[in-house]
Amino acid sequence: MENIDSVFKAIDDQQDEFIDLLRESVAIRSVSADPARRGDCIRMSEWARDQLRTLGAETSLWDLGKQNLPSGEELPLPPAVFGVYGRDKAKKTLLIYGHLDVQPAEKEDGWNTDPFELTEIDGKLFGRGSTDDKGPVIAWIAVLKVLQRLGIELPINIKFVLEGMEESGSEGFDKGLEDNIDKISDVTYSCISDNYWLGRNKPCLTYGLRGICYYFVEISCARQDLHSGINGGSVPEALNDLMWIMSQLVTVDGQILIPGIAELVAPLTKDEDDLYDKIDFCVDTFKNETGSHGLMSDNKKNLLMNRWRYPSLSLHGVEGAFSQPGAKTVIPAKVTGKFSLRIVPHMTPEATDKLVTSYLDSLWAKRKSPNTFKVTSGHGGMPWVADFRDANFSAGSRAIERVYGTTPDFTREGGSIPVTLTIQDLTKSPVMLLPIGASDDMAHSQNEKINRENFVKGMKVLAAYMFELAA
Amino acid sequence: MENIDSVFKAIDDQQDEFIDLLRESVAIRSVSADPARRGDCIRMSEWARDQLRTLGAETSLWDLGKQNLPSGEELPLPPAVFGVYGRDKAKKTLLIYGHLDVQPAEKEDGWNTDPFELTEIDGKLFGRGSTDDKGPVIAWIAVLKVLQRLGIELPINIKFVLEGMEESGSEGFDKGLEDNIDKISDVTYSCISDNYWLGRNKPCLTYGLRGICYYFVEISCARQDLHSGINGGSVPEALNDLMWIMSQLVTVDGQILIPGIAELVAPLTKDEDDLYDKIDFCVDTFKNETGSHGLMSDNKKNLLMNRWRYPSLSLHGVEGAFSQPGAKTVIPAKVTGKFSLRIVPHMTPEATDKLVTSYLDSLWAKRKSPNTFKVTSGHGGMPWVADFRDANFSAGSRAIERVYGTTPDFTREGGSIPVTLTIQDLTKSPVMLLPIGASDDMAHSQNEKINRENFVKGMKVLAAYMFELAA
Repeated sequence: MENIDSVFKAIDDQQDEFIDLLRESVAIRSVSADPARRGDCIRMSEWARDQLRTLGAETSLWDLGKQNLPSGEELPLPPAVFGVYGRDKAKKTLLIYGHLDVQPAEKEDGWNTDPFELTEIDGKLFGRGSTDDKGPVIAWIAVLKVLQRLGIELPINIKFVLEGMEESGSEGFDKGLEDNIDKISDVTYSCISDNYWLGRNKPCLTYGLRGICYYFVEISCARQDLHSGINGGSVPEALNDLMWIMSQLVTVDGQILIPGIAELVAPLTKDEDDLYDKIDFCVDTFKNETGSHGLMSDNKKNLLMNRWRYPSLSLHGVEGAFSQPGAKTVIPAKVTGKFSLRIVPHMTPEATDKLVTSYLDSLWAKRKSPNTFKVTSGHGGMPWVADFRDANFSAGSRAIERVYGTTPDFTREGGSIPVTLTIQDLTKSPVMLLPIGASDDMAHSQNEKINRENFVKGMKVLAAYMFELAA
Repeated sequence: MENIDSVFKAIDDQQDEFIDLLRESVAIRSVSADPARRGDCIRMSEWARDQLRTLGAETSLWDLGKQNLPSGEELPLPPAVFGVYGRDKAKKTLLIYGHLDVQPAEKEDGWNTDPFELTEIDGKLFGRGSTDDKGPVIAWIAVLKVLQRLGIELPINIKFVLEGMEESGSEGFDKGLEDNIDKISDVTYSCISDNYWLGRNKPCLTYGLRGICYYFVEISCARQDLHSGINGGSVPEALNDLMWIMSQLVTVDGQILIPGIAELVAPLTKDEDDLYDKIDFCVDTFKNETGSHGLMSDNKKNLLMNRWRYPSLSLHGVEGAFSQPGAKTVIPAKVTGKFSLRIVPHMTPEATDKLVTSYLDSLWAKRKSPNTFKVTSGHGGMPWVADFRDANFSAGSRAIERVYGTTPDFTREGGSIPVTLTIQDLTKSPVMLLPIGASDDMAHSQNEKINRENFVKGMKVLAAYMFELAA
């Protein structure tokens, strides 16, 4: 750690060079959702591989096979980039995950600048991928460059796994990891920089994600749609049954009415409870940003817990009913209601499915409708929670404190980043989410950016994190 | 009435000629919904005018102005045909309404024969407009031809009003009637043959139609759609509020939960009650034809009353929620639920609106949601009920008995035929709906037909009806 100040100084001095490197990568239009850009996605993998190789890594490209498009066309999947720095058995080994593909972007969508030309305005670096996720990947590469130039030996071994289809469901990636399991079986810790700060000002480390269970409730009352004039009053209507079923799932203030769900939720520990008070989060700002008319709670702690550490149930819509503008006098014959639960430890999709199905069945029995009723569950996803007091998080926290002069907030997120669990399960290593960008970086949206300050301080955090991890 | 048997015999003898006349009219592709067929619609009006004129009527075409298409194009509306037979002040005057336009039809839609070439198979005359509504119009013309050939003086004065836009919302027709109100102010009775028997075997006369009130319940929870992962558990959801509101409107067995509605319904009279037992209607056939899994009642009388003489409330759908196949984890920001009530005497749209709005407001107050809530009512339509014991219905009933050897069923319909009320209100004359076709005639659908027997006996009924009316 005696070297860290010289590392920080070098990062400060060489920051423009690293921004140029980011510019170079943003210019490669690696939009994984656009078949016409598949060549750019592959080029992006090769570009990243070349960067790592230049830095002396052992590199390889993992062929992930083909993608079958709905059109019947077959496209090669962009290869995953694998890079190894050091195989010193006396050192810990850190797996770094990042992705090289980006969301689609067109100037006409409402960008103020060319999305594929990194443009700095008032300390903000605008460009597609600047924060999601090319910025964090370049930050790691920059740190290795700086250490190499300073002649400082890496305090840990590093393995990079960079994929090129994250924005398109990570197609092929899980299998690629499984096929190369022997190459990552020695990993001690993993780190993913693919999420964002909770706010704009204070760094955080993320230790939890919710899982999901998605349900389809199909009710049918007739062979074909009926006319509400001719038939209204003669047939018990499927949509009436469905609305009633859907109205019995969650109260106006978010209490899930499915018996047994609350009992599955991991109890709140004092350690976790203590985290919330310090968290930099403003309820009013959140309310303004969502434009919501009300919140489940005006209390910061309760609101965050509702979003992160408790399950929630949301109604999404109805398939098969009249959904267009205007008036139509139809009695829909078959309707499918859709809702999902965000699940948290110790809930599992299996246990949740059982409770949900059993509750829906009991509602249906109570309804005494002659109609047909069928519940199907979609693909479930497990929640993820790490131990925020483990060595990985401690190292991350000390690194942030060293750069920002403040300990980070320990946060969760309400949604899912499926690769987190995949990497944890395959490497059997503790994973930490270490975001670099701020909450207003507009990932996936128009005018995506990363602040120059976040990018530069992010490099310093990553550098310090390596040394803290080794300490 | 001494002549009626010779009239019946002439109809039997000349039936093929009248089927040829129907064939001629079916061949004119008067599809009012298709701008490319507007010329045919106008030609159809002229053809009908020529038929009436040949029979010695005073005729005129009412210019109904232009139709503005969504494209900005202007098309002439097909003129309404007005024809007058006789102005004998000592006789009653019957207004006959019919329409000359038809629903779209293409062989490829699943027709077994060319829809615009009347084709007889096993006593069924297949062709677009055969039953809706060219068949009944031709039947009237045929009756006048027969009487003329037999040298029998018309027992009543007759006024024809035939329109050419019925299948397209009767655009321009109400105004045409109002502009020509002085020409129809002397009408004693009106008769419309534009509906169908309740079944396949027994004729009926229709004395009631339900009206309609349509409602839009708009609830908004946020400025834009939210993500159920990021925001689930933080915002009281609009769709949850809406599902609950919509679930409080009507029970599984069709009881409307809006206070005050039941009190508006005209009490059942003994006369009306007595009608139901005789009605030729099979509950099981109805259930099979709708393919419904259950019925509000297995009792014939209750089921018919539910469809005809009591209000019903149907839920139609939700606008703004997820309605596509598959799974989407959206929290919709603004949703609009749609439902309607079929109304009956003595309900009015105004009184119904008041009760519905007040009930929805009270539900919303009970809900204690922070979201925004707005109820809008669509265009309301009044119900129509005639006195089935009046001279018009008595004449119709006696005419049917004379032809079929049985008194007709007195039926209502659950839907609306708006022109019925328009004609009743403008002419201040009692209206009767006298269907000629059977329930399986497939009006609006593929393979529309009228049975030769219904067509021929229908002519006889219309002839006898004129004489009975004069009696």
